Amino acid sequence: MDDLYISSVDEVSVNDVEMDGAVNVKIQWLVSKEMGPNFALRRFILGPGGQTPYHSHGWEHEVFVLKGHGTLVTGEERDETPISYGSVSYVPGCSMHQFRNSGEGDLEFLCIVPVEENDC
Amino acid sequence: MDDLYISSVDEVSVNDVEMDGAVNVKIQWLVSKEMGPNFALRRFILGPGGQTPYHSHGWEHEVFVLKGHGTLVTGEERDETPISYGSVSYVPGCSMHQFRNSGEGDLEFLCIVPVEENDC
Repeated sequence: MDDLYISSVDEVSVNDVEMDGAVNVKIQWLVSKEMGPNFALRRFILGPGGQTPYHSHGWEHEVFVLKGHGTLVTGEERDETPISYGSVSYVPGCSMHQFRNSGEGDLEFLCIVPVEENDC
Repeated sequence: MDDLYISSVDEVSVNDVEMDGAVNVKIQWLVSKEMGPNFALRRFILGPGGQTPYHSHGWEHEVFVLKGHGTLVTGEERDETPISYGSVSYVPGCSMHQFRNSGEGDLEFLCIVPVEENDC
């Protein structure tokens, strides 16, 4: 932990997300939980028709959309907000959320999480 | 704190960085330190010839380059690494670093910091 690290998205392995409710979702851990003491930086890639689970957990997300067009679904009411390049979100811990790709190409976004996973 | 927030880079104010050593640097606090308990998400925009201070501080950076071409200068030796779209870095706390724009357009990158600013 706490070594300088410089890399590129092209050098980081891409893995399928196998969670229940995840459809056509891949993840890259750009800065892993082992590298830093406080937070980790991931890139998600949702193929056409892809979506993350509609779920909640005890930790927050901070999100920046890099590419594509999609929908951020939030709350018990499943409110839908369109997202595209430059969309930013803070999703509090313990709040329901889902990302859906609504475009014809990939939807890509960065999602930052704390290293420590709190319960709700 | 801990309210859902959805916005866009186009909606967030852009401010000049007035620090000593900063040249042609603007910042947007996309997710501020008041919004979440653990970390904040900023976008930096370095105009042509722009650079951040060559400096260090007690907290880490996690960085993702969005646009342009530049150089990440690190360590006491001032090692230079080219950066462009998709470059990723973890810069540990208390380590010297500087971002320089080497291109003809803007250099833009996201830089995540912890809410708590530790001393070295």
